[in-house]
Amino acid sequence: MKTVKVGLLGLGNVGSGTYKILDENRAIIEKRIGKNIEVVKILQRNPNKKRLVNINDYMTTQNPDDILLDSEIDIVVEAIGGIEPATTFMLTAMKNGKHVVTANKAAVAANYPKLVKTAQENHVAFRFEASVGGAIPALTAITEALAGNKFTEVMGIVNGTTNYILTKMTDLGLDYDDVLKDAQAKGFAEADPTADVEGIDVANKLSILMALAFDKYVAPKDIPTEGISKITMKDIEDAKSKECKIKLIAEAKFEDGNLSYSVKPTLLPVTHPLSSVSNEFNAVYITGNASGELMFYGKGAGPLPTGSAVVGDIISIAKLEVK
Amino acid sequence: MKTVKVGLLGLGNVGSGTYKILDENRAIIEKRIGKNIEVVKILQRNPNKKRLVNINDYMTTQNPDDILLDSEIDIVVEAIGGIEPATTFMLTAMKNGKHVVTANKAAVAANYPKLVKTAQENHVAFRFEASVGGAIPALTAITEALAGNKFTEVMGIVNGTTNYILTKMTDLGLDYDDVLKDAQAKGFAEADPTADVEGIDVANKLSILMALAFDKYVAPKDIPTEGISKITMKDIEDAKSKECKIKLIAEAKFEDGNLSYSVKPTLLPVTHPLSSVSNEFNAVYITGNASGELMFYGKGAGPLPTGSAVVGDIISIAKLEVK
Repeated sequence: MKTVKVGLLGLGNVGSGTYKILDENRAIIEKRIGKNIEVVKILQRNPNKKRLVNINDYMTTQNPDDILLDSEIDIVVEAIGGIEPATTFMLTAMKNGKHVVTANKAAVAANYPKLVKTAQENHVAFRFEASVGGAIPALTAITEALAGNKFTEVMGIVNGTTNYILTKMTDLGLDYDDVLKDAQAKGFAEADPTADVEGIDVANKLSILMALAFDKYVAPKDIPTEGISKITMKDIEDAKSKECKIKLIAEAKFEDGNLSYSVKPTLLPVTHPLSSVSNEFNAVYITGNASGELMFYGKGAGPLPTGSAVVGDIISIAKLEVK
Repeated sequence: MKTVKVGLLGLGNVGSGTYKILDENRAIIEKRIGKNIEVVKILQRNPNKKRLVNINDYMTTQNPDDILLDSEIDIVVEAIGGIEPATTFMLTAMKNGKHVVTANKAAVAANYPKLVKTAQENHVAFRFEASVGGAIPALTAITEALAGNKFTEVMGIVNGTTNYILTKMTDLGLDYDDVLKDAQAKGFAEADPTADVEGIDVANKLSILMALAFDKYVAPKDIPTEGISKITMKDIEDAKSKECKIKLIAEAKFEDGNLSYSVKPTLLPVTHPLSSVSNEFNAVYITGNASGELMFYGKGAGPLPTGSAVVGDIISIAKLEVK
């Protein structure tokens, strides 16, 4: 049986989740694709950090070139996060003939044209399903099963932290500051929550969704973006009186040849499918000229849901690209 | 530019929808895949039947062999429906080296092992995304983006007619018989509604979902199946008093190495994601050991939604298999 060799950059949440799934579901994956997928080397920059999975020291390295330049490695999984050095690592891997999989929305959104072009020039696959909506296979749906559609609209609840905060404000009548503190205590929000609560993370994801659905790259910084930090209990109550909920919505619409887009807190009627997406759940709602409206719902974060999407991308590449 | 040649068996709802999408979205599909997809021959058994799309007579035939045996055709789309002659046509196409796409849940569910084996033996692709949930890309999600998961549960609302009837009974307080007559008048239910209301159509779809998610083929006739024809207003009211809705649910669970399955009217708490799936909409709810719970929601029937899934399958094959 052919062994597909994977090099893993990073052993945080995403890296650990990916490793764990490939390990625990090894038998079923082998049966499905007729190939063995093996993680052969892992970049762990801080070897003293407590590991979430049980890995032998000989498999780890502190030198990225041990993975990026290793001619035996077929697929590089970038699970470091942040724009740099992640982007440079991905470009180097591609130039060395390696397929690349990432969950990194910041790097993909910031450097989408360059990453896609470099992958094409080097005839390697570049997949990033996990970068939007965690386990939800929205990107693959857009580029594969729905590829016969002209899309007219994409809407999403694609940040679990803000959706958790808005849900608790709505359901429990609590103030923004109190819910944020509670979310931080529970690990649902970062110590510095800016990227989440100001909509920056959502803008990254909308940039990626638009690039795929409308074949149009808009840099995240060019997307009008408003977060939820100014939402008050009065706003929530006003929404309720109109039979609506406030959700942080990423939206892009293609009308009369014109693409409009924004990230902002939005009043949704309680009957809208996205209204019932609560707590840390994510959903992508998309309308095609043939499919009509569709919604994909699931867990948008966490080691295993995010790892599920990374492993799906690894499997797709292993099936088709690694002979 | 390479032209991928498609032969279409049948010009009813599914065939017409498929033709229309390939025609109207031609430019965007070509741009996405770098190949041209051309329907070159159409089997229309009754040439006097009014056509839903504008097609020249020279493109149609009444002889299936004009498609099944034509060495120029790359992909055969089976859009006739029913178990036979559809199954025989698909097997013949495969044996003649043609990739096969179908929306036909009855034929796929009845003959799944034989169809899959014949496709493998003849090194051709066999895709049937449209057979479950119309436009909803649930099958591709299970076999591609979620392929790293062990699935523990699949649930679905996968019949629009029965979901429409139950929704109207619940929301408007109407009797089963009255709603059925209304649905028949509006074209949402067949003159003979047996296959829908008795759960036979749903059992076909559950058979296909189980084959993909659990790698276990169960013939539809071996699935315990109960329809909605005995549901009374009292049942609906009893459900409401328990804060539940009655939905016709296809369900398969894998627990302790054992697969259990059924199609039956089921009480769902109003908080369950499937409870808010109303009218003619469909949804598939699936739980993986890595992904957690996911739901895919959309239009389960109609020429364009079903055609969307057929065209997605054609595009997948055109991209990968037709050199």
